[in-house]
Amino acid sequence: MSIISMEAESADTIVALATPTGSGAIAVIRLSGPQAIEIVNGVFKGKDLSKQASHTVHFGTIHDEDGKILDEVLASVFIAPHSYTRENVVEVSTHGSKYIVESIIKLFIRKGARAAKPGEFTLRAFLHGGMDLSQAEAVADLIASNSAASHQVAMQQMRGGFSNELKQLREQLIHFASMIELELDFSEEDVEFANRSQLKDLILEIIKVLHRLILSFEQGNVLKNGVPIVIAGKPNVGKSTLLNALLNEERAIVSDIAGTTRDTIEDEINIQGVSFRFIDTAGIRDTEDIIEAKGVERTREKMKKARLVIYLVDPVDDAFEEVSIQVADLILLRTPFVLVINKKDLLSPDALAQYEPLNPVFISAKSGDGVEALKEELLNQVSLRNINVDDVMVTNIRHVEALLKTQASLEKVLYGIDNPITSDFLAMDIRQALHHLGEITGQVSTEDLLDNIFSKFCIGK
Amino acid sequence: MSIISMEAESADTIVALATPTGSGAIAVIRLSGPQAIEIVNGVFKGKDLSKQASHTVHFGTIHDEDGKILDEVLASVFIAPHSYTRENVVEVSTHGSKYIVESIIKLFIRKGARAAKPGEFTLRAFLHGGMDLSQAEAVADLIASNSAASHQVAMQQMRGGFSNELKQLREQLIHFASMIELELDFSEEDVEFANRSQLKDLILEIIKVLHRLILSFEQGNVLKNGVPIVIAGKPNVGKSTLLNALLNEERAIVSDIAGTTRDTIEDEINIQGVSFRFIDTAGIRDTEDIIEAKGVERTREKMKKARLVIYLVDPVDDAFEEVSIQVADLILLRTPFVLVINKKDLLSPDALAQYEPLNPVFISAKSGDGVEALKEELLNQVSLRNINVDDVMVTNIRHVEALLKTQASLEKVLYGIDNPITSDFLAMDIRQALHHLGEITGQVSTEDLLDNIFSKFCIGK
Repeated sequence: MSIISMEAESADTIVALATPTGSGAIAVIRLSGPQAIEIVNGVFKGKDLSKQASHTVHFGTIHDEDGKILDEVLASVFIAPHSYTRENVVEVSTHGSKYIVESIIKLFIRKGARAAKPGEFTLRAFLHGGMDLSQAEAVADLIASNSAASHQVAMQQMRGGFSNELKQLREQLIHFASMIELELDFSEEDVEFANRSQLKDLILEIIKVLHRLILSFEQGNVLKNGVPIVIAGKPNVGKSTLLNALLNEERAIVSDIAGTTRDTIEDEINIQGVSFRFIDTAGIRDTEDIIEAKGVERTREKMKKARLVIYLVDPVDDAFEEVSIQVADLILLRTPFVLVINKKDLLSPDALAQYEPLNPVFISAKSGDGVEALKEELLNQVSLRNINVDDVMVTNIRHVEALLKTQASLEKVLYGIDNPITSDFLAMDIRQALHHLGEITGQVSTEDLLDNIFSKFCIGK
Repeated sequence: MSIISMEAESADTIVALATPTGSGAIAVIRLSGPQAIEIVNGVFKGKDLSKQASHTVHFGTIHDEDGKILDEVLASVFIAPHSYTRENVVEVSTHGSKYIVESIIKLFIRKGARAAKPGEFTLRAFLHGGMDLSQAEAVADLIASNSAASHQVAMQQMRGGFSNELKQLREQLIHFASMIELELDFSEEDVEFANRSQLKDLILEIIKVLHRLILSFEQGNVLKNGVPIVIAGKPNVGKSTLLNALLNEERAIVSDIAGTTRDTIEDEINIQGVSFRFIDTAGIRDTEDIIEAKGVERTREKMKKARLVIYLVDPVDDAFEEVSIQVADLILLRTPFVLVINKKDLLSPDALAQYEPLNPVFISAKSGDGVEALKEELLNQVSLRNINVDDVMVTNIRHVEALLKTQASLEKVLYGIDNPITSDFLAMDIRQALHHLGEITGQVSTEDLLDNIFSKFCIGK
């Protein structure tokens, strides 16, 4: 399916449930396409929807072919291009019954609509110029966002922050590419329309920006997906108690708002908007023996995969020297870690002081004392304290790959400027860079790419 | 909480998520109350919502106190009394992210809204005269409806069919009650404003209607909740194969529409709009030994609770005489049953003929042959084939109880007319009947009753 065939396909009218399945007060069925208003109007008793202004809501009943009332609904009318997809859109708000939703969607399909594919509404928004590709991708990220930080990054991208930054780079490059291509037309006269030193400066400037964007990926990814974190330590040092202390407070906050917390992710905490995901906590809860002979290798694997390790020590069971050896082992793993000394209330001031050189956090997992300080330290460790989430940040592996390819092409251009390479090769490399930049925002896209992106969306979006 | 205090409470503005939790393209947050528009407007950038017409939709962004964008949304404005609750209502359609929904609801609460209790939107619709109590109850039934029949019954009730029928009875009774009370004012003159013979005719007429409504309960209840049904039979006669044959076809139909079937109820089939629920099929699937010595008592209990039993026989294993004994046992249970002879393809015509006096259905569970005929027979057995679901039908135990009490009071009135009882007692009995009728539609209601009804609703409705 090329873009052109997709545009042809958008002559269809598509329909899908836009709200989650399950029981709720209302459900919203969304239709988009040239026949959207006509299809709903054909089964709707109330005002004539085809004569209503855009952005108006109308009460009425939906009837099947036998005249039976399927539901009392509100129909919201959006007239092209003033809609999400830039097509005619009708949103039908029904009672939240699965039976009603199925019956009405089936009715719309009998009347000429087609069941929407995943992400097809957003695909249409992209194809009709309502948003570029990176913005469309941000819509899915926004829906999946579960922390202030991931939300902020997705929102920034959806509202075009990233796209705008790329657009500027692209326009400057296009200018030079045209100039150099003009030189090709006059190649026998040996003129230089594009000032090579200015071009070099521009490319160095662009590479600097690309570099910053590429570097932002690690942080952006952490903000988007959360920090994978492991609690490790010898058996019975209090790992599960600590995990519960970290998780419980969070839960109490989250469960404030009735009806919105049913599927809270279990083993995740949010510290100042950054989410930390505990890896394989099931193991911790079932058994405390993950450092036992047999489990050592498995634990080391987990610790390597984590972005951060909380290493918990029971100073009553293990002497300082023993702890020092464990810490030395940890350092060899090369995963950043926070050393946590449990049972602080049972240690003498001298014993506590002894540990200071190891920069530990002292806590009592049981009483919760010190848990706040631990949270602060976790934030410090992932260097996310001073991130400005308003900065443009790359969170998508596809974008990073395109940025890296752009960078490689531009480095070729740089080489070409400093070496006796003809304008046509220079132009080709600049075009290649433009191509890769364009992949991000969708100026350049293929059927496979779009399929791949939008198939990950939910149906109805 | 009396009705009066509830009316005072409705000076609050309430907020709740109106769509199911979980992942979806969009979520709808609903606010209702005097401050609804003001609260949303205070955090909304776009048009000034306080200046918009009712039933219009506006694109804009929601900002928190720090000016951070929480989401791009559509806000639909409904101005009192032209809304579901008859108060000012705003529906905010956001991206379907739990994080966004929680953040925005919290923001609205900080700005003066209060989290809605279950059913509170519909309670307000009732208190403001938007619907009567039986209609409000039908809203919950409608959301829970999962078959054409239960949907139709709930829809009828929500649209006032039942209420209208009661209203007419009530008005006629009120007329007579007033007449008789007038007699009390002139009691020393011994006049009769209310013609006793007309009153008697009216009451007999009303009792007839009450009787019809009360009798409709069993059918209405079956339509609303489905027919509880059990598949029984000796071990290894093919019960699980039959169950799958009955269920599978259904599933194939239901799974037609992607995205709407994820939580289909497993062990339920729909025959011509009537739903049949199989009881404890898990047992059938795990093991076939439910008629074994130990399980006999448990099976008999299940068969008694069912509305209908499918009794499956393997005529290859059991001779006709053996089957006859089983059938005699079944009859003693007094639960209606359908005798099903499996493996019809393995029987000779003579063997088949032998079973005819027992009115069986012959099937082959394996090939599916005869399963359609079995479905027809199930429908016949529950006498639902010729039900006209457009008839007013009572499905609510509370309503039946009120109807029975009304009937009892009216029977007292009848007795009073035929016996030397004074007008004041007659008036009291009529008032009592009116009271019970009024309980159904909510002309008479108590705090406890309303609490009890609306607490069963979901939040956001």
